[in-house]
Order: sequence, then C-alpha cells, then structure tokens
Amino acid sequence: MELREKILANLNLVKEKSPLIHHITNYVTVNDCANIVLAIGGSPVMADDLEEVAEMVGFASALVLNIGTLNARTIESMLVAGLRAKALGVPVILDPVGVGATKLRTNTAEKLIRELKPEVIRGNMSEVKILAGLEAAIKGVDSLADEQDSSIIAKKLASELSCVIAITGKTDVVSDGSQVCLLDNGHRILADVTGTGCMTTSLVGTFCGVTKDYYTAAIAGIISMGLAGEIAQASLRHGEGVGTFRARLFDSIYNLTPETLAREGKISNE
Amino acid sequence: MELREKILANLNLVKEKSPLIHHITNYVTVNDCANIVLAIGGSPVMADDLEEVAEMVGFASALVLNIGTLNARTIESMLVAGLRAKALGVPVILDPVGVGATKLRTNTAEKLIRELKPEVIRGNMSEVKILAGLEAAIKGVDSLADEQDSSIIAKKLASELSCVIAITGKTDVVSDGSQVCLLDNGHRILADVTGTGCMTTSLVGTFCGVTKDYYTAAIAGIISMGLAGEIAQASLRHGEGVGTFRARLFDSIYNLTPETLAREGKISNE
Amino acid sequence: MELREKILANLNLVKEKSPLIHHITNYVTVNDCANIVLAIGGSPVMADDLEEVAEMVGFASALVLNIGTLNARTIESMLVAGLRAKALGVPVILDPVGVGATKLRTNTAEKLIRELKPEVIRGNMSEVKILAGLEAAIKGVDSLADEQDSSIIAKKLASELSCVIAITGKTDVVSDGSQVCLLDNGHRILADVTGTGCMTTSLVGTFCGVTKDYYTAAIAGIISMGLAGEIAQASLRHGEGVGTFRARLFDSIYNLTPETLAREGKISNE
Repeated sequence: MELREKILANLNLVKEKSPLIHHITNYVTVNDCANIVLAIGGSPVMADDLEEVAEMVGFASALVLNIGTLNARTIESMLVAGLRAKALGVPVILDPVGVGATKLRTNTAEKLIRELKPEVIRGNMSEVKILAGLEAAIKGVDSLADEQDSSIIAKKLASELSCVIAITGKTDVVSDGSQVCLLDNGHRILADVTGTGCMTTSLVGTFCGVTKDYYTAAIAGIISMGLAGEIAQASLRHGEGVGTFRARLFDSIYNLTPETLAREGKISNE
Repeated sequence: MELREKILANLNLVKEKSPLIHHITNYVTVNDCANIVLAIGGSPVMADDLEEVAEMVGFASALVLNIGTLNARTIESMLVAGLRAKALGVPVILDPVGVGATKLRTNTAEKLIRELKPEVIRGNMSEVKILAGLEAAIKGVDSLADEQDSSIIAKKLASELSCVIAITGKTDVVSDGSQVCLLDNGHRILADVTGTGCMTTSLVGTFCGVTKDYYTAAIAGIISMGLAGEIAQASLRHGEGVGTFRARLFDSIYNLTPETLAREGKISNE
Repeated sequence: MELREKILANLNLVKEKSPLIHHITNYVTVNDCANIVLAIGGSPVMADDLEEVAEMVGFASALVLNIGTLNARTIESMLVAGLRAKALGVPVILDPVGVGATKLRTNTAEKLIRELKPEVIRGNMSEVKILAGLEAAIKGVDSLADEQDSSIIAKKLASELSCVIAITGKTDVVSDGSQVCLLDNGHRILADVTGTGCMTTSLVGTFCGVTKDYYTAAIAGIISMGLAGEIAQASLRHGEGVGTFRARLFDSIYNLTPETLAREGKISNE
C-alpha cells in the first residue's frame, strides 16, 4: 500500500476502533491532550499513580510519556508503566519536553529511552539534538535550533535507537532509520499556543494505537496537526487570534476526513 | 412545590447565594470544573493539601470529590476533607471516575463511600454497576454499558447507600431510593469533549450548595448540562466542531435562565 | 520618559525579546497562564520539581510564584527557586491566591515574602489586606472587600515591604511605596472566568522580564488584561457568554498593540 493510502486507512481505523491512549503527562497541557485524542476519534485516559499505572496500561493501545512537568513521583510511574507496556507489546511514545534545559530532564529522558526503548520519540530540533549527543540552543522548553541537518540527525538517531524519530518544526522530519520523509504542513501560529507539540505527540500515540507501522503513524499524527493548524488559521477573521484559533484547531481535527488527510498532506521522501 | 418549580427556584438560589464549592479533583478537567461552577453562578475553590482541606471545607456549601487522577496524597485529603464536611453538615458529592478500571480506583471509591456516605454519587452506567457489585464493561474511564436496567440499579443502590444516585448516559437516571426520574436532555457530542461528566458533577455540587433536597439538586445539575449541550450543539455552523462547541457550552450555562431550565428540561417520573 | 511611553516601549520589548517566564503555579489555571504569556509575546516555562527549579530559573527573565493550589512539595520548590532568582537578580512576582482563607496559605505567603522579598505582589483587596495585617472578608479564594482605602493600603504595604503592590478589583491600584496610580480598565465579566487574576500576574511577570522598572511593568500587565477584557466583552453577540469571552480574551491580548495599550489605558495618578 502506498503511504497516503496507509495514512487514510489509519485514520479510518482510529475512528472505528477508538484506541485507548494511556498518558502520563504534564499538568499544563493535559486537558488539550485529552481533547485532541477525543477529537480525532481515540479514547484518552490519564492516570499516573504508581499503584494503578501498570494495571491501566494493560487496557491501552498505546502509552504516551511526556516529561513536561516531571517530578520524582511521575518519573517512577513512567518507568513502571513503560516496562509493563513493553512486556505487553503496547507501543511507547516519548515526548522529551525541554530535554537539555535541566539535568533532571536530560537524565530522565535518557533513562526512559535506555530502559523502555520507545517506539517513537517526538520532539523539536533542540530536544532531538540533545538526545543525539549534539549541542543545541535551548530556551526553557522551546527550540532555538536551525533545521538544516535535521533529516541526517533524525535518520542517524532513529538507526541508533531502533525507533522512529519525529522532529517537528517549520518542516517536520520523520525517520525510522532507513526511510526519511519531510512534512510541510502547519502554520507558525501553532507555536503561539501552548501544547501544540504535546498534542502532536498524543495524535502520534493515537495512530500508534491502531497500527504496528509506527513510521506511518508518526507521519499521520504530525500531518493531522499541521493540516488542522492550516485550516484553523485560514478561518480567522479580523480581530481573532490565538484564542479563537485554538478552538478551531480542535474543530479542524474533529472534522478532518481520511481523504483530506491523505490528499492535503505535503509529504516528500528524501 | 412541584419538581420544575423547585428546579427553577434552585437556579435562582445559586445565582443569589453564589455557594462556595470546594473541589478535590483531577488535574485533567479541573479548569473546566472551576469555569462551569462560575458560569452557573457559583464560586469554586480547588484546594487539596492535607494541611488546608479541613479548614477550607469549613467555608464551603458543598464538597465535590472526583477521583479522575487520584494519588496517595489526594486520597488522604479527600478522606480528611470529607469527614470534616460530614461533621459540619456540608454535602459530599462523589464522582467515581473510572471505578472498576483499576483496583486503586475501586478500592478508593469504596472507601470514600463507606467512610463518608456521600449525599450524591454521579457516574456513568459502568461506574455505577461496579459500585452496585455488578459486572460492567469498562474501557479506561469510559462506559461501555448498555442502559437498560438503569433505573432499577439506581434505585436499588440509592436505597442501599441512603444517598442519591445519578447515572448519566443517553438517558440519565436519578434516584433517591424511593423516587426515580429519567432525564432526556443532552447530545451525543458531549461525549466527544473531556470533562463533561466531571462538569456535570460540579454542577450537581453547586445545586447541592443551596438546598438540602439533593434529589432535586442532582436533577437540576444534570439537566443544566444536558440543555446547555443541546443549545451549544444547535449553534454550530459548517466546519465547527468540538472546540467551538466547548466554548458555547460555557456560554449556554452562563446564559441559562431558571425559566428555560424548568421549561425545557425533559423529565419523566418512572 | 512619560509613563505611557514607557508602557508602549515595554510591550515592544516583550515582543522583541520574548522573555522566558518561569512559573511555579497552580494546576487549575496553569494552561491559561502559559497561553497568556505566549499571547503577549513572552515565553512561558512551567517547572516545579525541586531537582530542577534552581537550574531552570537560571534561564528565566522573571519568576512567577502562585499559591493557588500549593502543597508541601511545591512550597519548597518555590523557596528554592525564589532564593536562586534573588541571587541571580531575576525578579520574583508573587500571587498570594486565597491568602487568609487558610493558615497554610497565610503562613506560606508570609514565608515567601519574608524570605524572598518579591519585587511585585499582585492580589485582590482581601488578599492584600491580610498581608497588611488588616482584617478582610474572604470567601474561598475570592475577595469580598470594599475598595475605599485601597491606595492607602497599597502605598503603606509597598513602603513596608520595599516592593510594588498591585491590587486588582473594580479600580486597580499600583504603588511602589512613593508613587500610586489608579487603573480603570476592565469589565466585571472578567470575574466570571477562572484564572483572570492569575493571568494578570503572569502578564505582570512578563513585563518584569524586560525592565527593572517593576512599577511600570505592573501597570502594563494590569492594563493589558483590563483592555483585553473590554475588547473581548464588547465583541460578544447575543447568546455568547464566558466561553466565547475567554477565547476572545486571548485573541485580544494577542492582537494588542503598544499604541492601543498606551492610548486606551485609563491611568490616573493619585
């Protein structure tokens, strides 16, 4: 099956199966993550207590780990849930928010990667550079990196870690270590709303809940958010801005058809 | 006074008294819960630290306990706040989110019910079945149960626990053990937005803050959300979806009049 | 430079420099705080773990401490982050949410003030009265105080604590102990949405990230929110309410120009 057909089929599967996506995530954008999973047709569950995460992940089709506001309690829960997910064959999707900004984030991301071997890692260029052992310019949890070299870095790191690496930015890059593709949907206003990165990871997680082809799943998640961002931005009228944009972003994901996703996705293979 | 008149009177009381509703709730939908209480005319306060919950509940007109993202720290706070509420005659409203999904949730809900004897329990059919000791089909924190038998189950459990049981679903059921009524407002899009169940519980809590007639309070809270959902959904135009719906849901609660609530509520006694 | 020119210049600086604003804040309104900082042109980061706060604040241009849902873990993080901020010359902005409602809140606010000597404290009249050692009428985390005496209290407390005191209410008052000014923007609907106080503090923090003139920064932050509230409210059509208002509030901050801010701000010196 061709890539666009696979993406189309995957969105149909999401709407048909409504996969349960277990999140251990930050308290800043958790509501957005739950709503975006619902909007595309999935079923989110947020549970982070050590006493229940292993049990909860047993019902899940994917596990999303996001270190946006990590702390000692949730780091342990991430490890326990992640190990259980691996034992059950549930894919683990990691969003290493702000890795490189503090030692705690860097050490935690490295530990999660080492012990859990996530199926997909989704970050911005600065975050992925840190994971690749390269120097990166970081400001809080936002990326300052240029995006040249991104496909080389994505491919190399994906190969080293035997996972899918997805780098989002002006142009997004996804690689599984052998294939690389560039995605050109999106709009810069997405960077003016908190949580659009986290939500992209949650969408990737949702697609990973219906297919073992995590490379296609990552692409589908990223172009879903990019396309929805374009549609939402194009709908803005004079005087409207990020508040209205945000509501329309959920509208656009909710109304996204498999045909639009496959047709309008700007995908090019390297 | 007839039921519809009582509902009308209760909404007037909420707007007049602005009851303080103390919540110990989950971090996914907490902002929505605070905003829905404000929208209907109440005054929300969210406080969960063991050091302050007993003191805070002393100012409150109702205590809402929601186990959506429970953990060891907040479970203890719920017990302490709940016991203080009972001692003060402040009604306790329990939302047993996801009970049955994990042992932690089931044990916690059962413990809260046993030790606090909540005045109202609001859940979906799967959750209430678990509390009633019946088998239920559960997926994460969402219900998969059919809704037949719901009035029998509601009435039986309400009688056993000497409280009001409110089961929300396609048709909602409320019982205090002797009376049972069915509510038919709402729209299925409500299930596509996270937190609509939690918000319903917060609305029930707000009504419980102005009357000792918790049966009527539960009905008033549930039909407020159902009606607001209908109005918000009917306002959607082409291309709009869950994002716009969610904003309009708060608009509709904010603009809900006592007359509309009493007139448009689809209430039938069994 | 005249006050209005300084405000205009400060908003230009925010948009040019995009200062990183480190928050340790509550889980109720944290998403709103992040989005409001982004909307005005700043860069928010939320991090509260003891292991990383001192490191994170090293990258920040301001530190916002908000005790809305404080607990033992975050209180310690606030102290550690605050002491590091002071050592580095990073301004500390305190929002003493609900101080006076419980001993925990009062003790924590007093400790943070004593140990950190914040550059700006932003609260409602009840909260500031408590900090000034006066009696106040409090209901949960909302103010019931009248606003007569507010400039006297603001000036006296600012002088005692050698900081800027900002009291928001129908008329806002800002004082640095010698200067006092009254601000008359805003709309009462702002009180019907949770987090508008917290967001105001985050905007004040954002302005403190680009100037050492914290008196002007506090004024700029408060009139930004007041003006945005007016614009958002004026845009509402029949049937719209707090949900739509909230989206438009972010729109209005996003589209706020330095010229509008300087021209439409209703500022009067005492």
